[in-house]
Amino acid sequence: MTSPQQINHRAVLAAHPQGMVQTSDIAFDAIPVPALRNGEVQIATHYLSLDPAIRYWMNAYDTYVPGGRIGSPVRCYAGGVVVESKHADFASGDWVTGLLSAQTQIVVDVSAATGALALTKCDPSLGTLSQHLGVLGMPGMTAYFGLLRQAKPVAGETVFVSAASGTVGSTVGQLAKLMGCRVVGSAGSDEKCRWLVDTLGFDAAFNYKVGNLAQALKQHAPEGIHIYFDNVGGEMLDAALANLARGARVVLCGALSAYNDAYAGPKNYIKLITARGTMNGIIVFDFMDEWPTATQQMAIWLAEGRLKSPEHISLGIGSFCSALIELFSGAHTGKQLVKVYVAP
Amino acid sequence: MTSPQQINHRAVLAAHPQGMVQTSDIAFDAIPVPALRNGEVQIATHYLSLDPAIRYWMNAYDTYVPGGRIGSPVRCYAGGVVVESKHADFASGDWVTGLLSAQTQIVVDVSAATGALALTKCDPSLGTLSQHLGVLGMPGMTAYFGLLRQAKPVAGETVFVSAASGTVGSTVGQLAKLMGCRVVGSAGSDEKCRWLVDTLGFDAAFNYKVGNLAQALKQHAPEGIHIYFDNVGGEMLDAALANLARGARVVLCGALSAYNDAYAGPKNYIKLITARGTMNGIIVFDFMDEWPTATQQMAIWLAEGRLKSPEHISLGIGSFCSALIELFSGAHTGKQLVKVYVAP
Repeated sequence: MTSPQQINHRAVLAAHPQGMVQTSDIAFDAIPVPALRNGEVQIATHYLSLDPAIRYWMNAYDTYVPGGRIGSPVRCYAGGVVVESKHADFASGDWVTGLLSAQTQIVVDVSAATGALALTKCDPSLGTLSQHLGVLGMPGMTAYFGLLRQAKPVAGETVFVSAASGTVGSTVGQLAKLMGCRVVGSAGSDEKCRWLVDTLGFDAAFNYKVGNLAQALKQHAPEGIHIYFDNVGGEMLDAALANLARGARVVLCGALSAYNDAYAGPKNYIKLITARGTMNGIIVFDFMDEWPTATQQMAIWLAEGRLKSPEHISLGIGSFCSALIELFSGAHTGKQLVKVYVAP
Repeated sequence: MTSPQQINHRAVLAAHPQGMVQTSDIAFDAIPVPALRNGEVQIATHYLSLDPAIRYWMNAYDTYVPGGRIGSPVRCYAGGVVVESKHADFASGDWVTGLLSAQTQIVVDVSAATGALALTKCDPSLGTLSQHLGVLGMPGMTAYFGLLRQAKPVAGETVFVSAASGTVGSTVGQLAKLMGCRVVGSAGSDEKCRWLVDTLGFDAAFNYKVGNLAQALKQHAPEGIHIYFDNVGGEMLDAALANLARGARVVLCGALSAYNDAYAGPKNYIKLITARGTMNGIIVFDFMDEWPTATQQMAIWLAEGRLKSPEHISLGIGSFCSALIELFSGAHTGKQLVKVYVAP
């Protein structure tokens, strides 16, 4: 009889998406798990992490990781448990996260997994495995380093974050509150906006689907935006640029709207001159050496209840594609994950 | 008999330009010069400085200086000689420059002329009055602080500058060579490109009117652009962004192409993320306290022949409008000025 650990169920790239992800872009298969060689570990996946960057990684071209290959598992963050190890740094039972891609059983050559592709061992005392993929993992680290290291918030400043009900956005907003800033968020429904203000403590939030963006920002940030944490690009970036305060910092994190080829560049970039603004990006993997320290700090805030991170979990790797489409449609609030079936 | 010092000949704003400056946007008049009051100085203009920013200052909206007013002299840099002073800091015969606007006789309330509108006293031992409007003045300071302070060039890096045959661009390129950088420039004719390479010592230059911009940059900066000093915006900014090297700095100085309402934002701004690039602007007036020190350094390089600054001079305030139109059409190379008639 074949054990579940001998079969790797995968969600593979069937086509490079044009614009947003379609059902036909992802296929499912199952292949045998190869025998473990020296220096390798085998990981049983527990959770697949649904992050907007997946869409970016599905493109054919190489970025800080190799581009998506047709027939290969879709690149995504995943968390699992080591079931067998032939590498001295890992033992059976260890919790690990990494860019393990959408598959249920993964064999990793540890010495070849470097940079963005490195395995991260997780401390179970800090939080759940799913939290290690969210607020304690890549999205949380993106918020942490993008806000605290790149933008350097000062108490009293106004921080605006778009896609504020997502994992990165909601963490940015809560961290900015912890730093004493006034925090404004945008999200795609009135319900999400209420959640940002009532549950997460944002000072203001507005539904970007209703009304004029620049006017909404003028209303909610009357003294201008000191930090704009951009998760969406497009019209929102332009509206934020138009409302920059003097000395503003724009942190480019994602650009959902830029995954569509028809997008335009930010016409108001000229505002960087008069506002003495700075615009740069955040690549969280540049700070990997500091993740352990940051994770410990985040775990403290999480334990103190000062950082909230709700989860929405889909069941089974077969739900990967639909869950990914739901992520981009903004169907849910907080961290979205696929719980992969693991034999008891 | 009325002396020339009692009449102020002016080039005044007749209309806010739509797109590029038209002859009908500027009119000429002459008004009596008021009697000098305490705290004021009267300046006889010798040179009007033609700088791309004039187009920007002609817009109705306020920026770091009040917007252009119909019937008021067109805002521009000018250099002149104090003919009468009722302020302790200035004496008859002093050389001064400032945003004195296009007029022949100017009365300035010294204590009210602050910030960008402040008068700068010039040291005749450092250079000619026209040089104090060029390489030793606002354009030179823009190149100096924009390149050396904002972009911080490192020897061996590749610096790309657009509108390289203008005063700012040619100074940026020469300063970058002094810092040990590889320098690439773009200009609007093959003749200008030859001048950049043969006379100013640029490593390469290309005619932006011929061929594909991104390909030209790939050819001339095969290892990517470390610093892009942007004097034009538009397609050139996009092409430069597409060719950024890791850790690149983009300094936004002007955006000639952005004076036309039909311009688009830089679609490739996303490249700031993967290239770990930074984009910000230069407002030279932020560094006014440091202009004297920088001017002395520039004068040394000028005297040593390491900084070249040719001039193209039109005669009479009546040539102000045509000279301005020529500036934007790229008719000439180097610093462009109007020499104002001054009675002997």
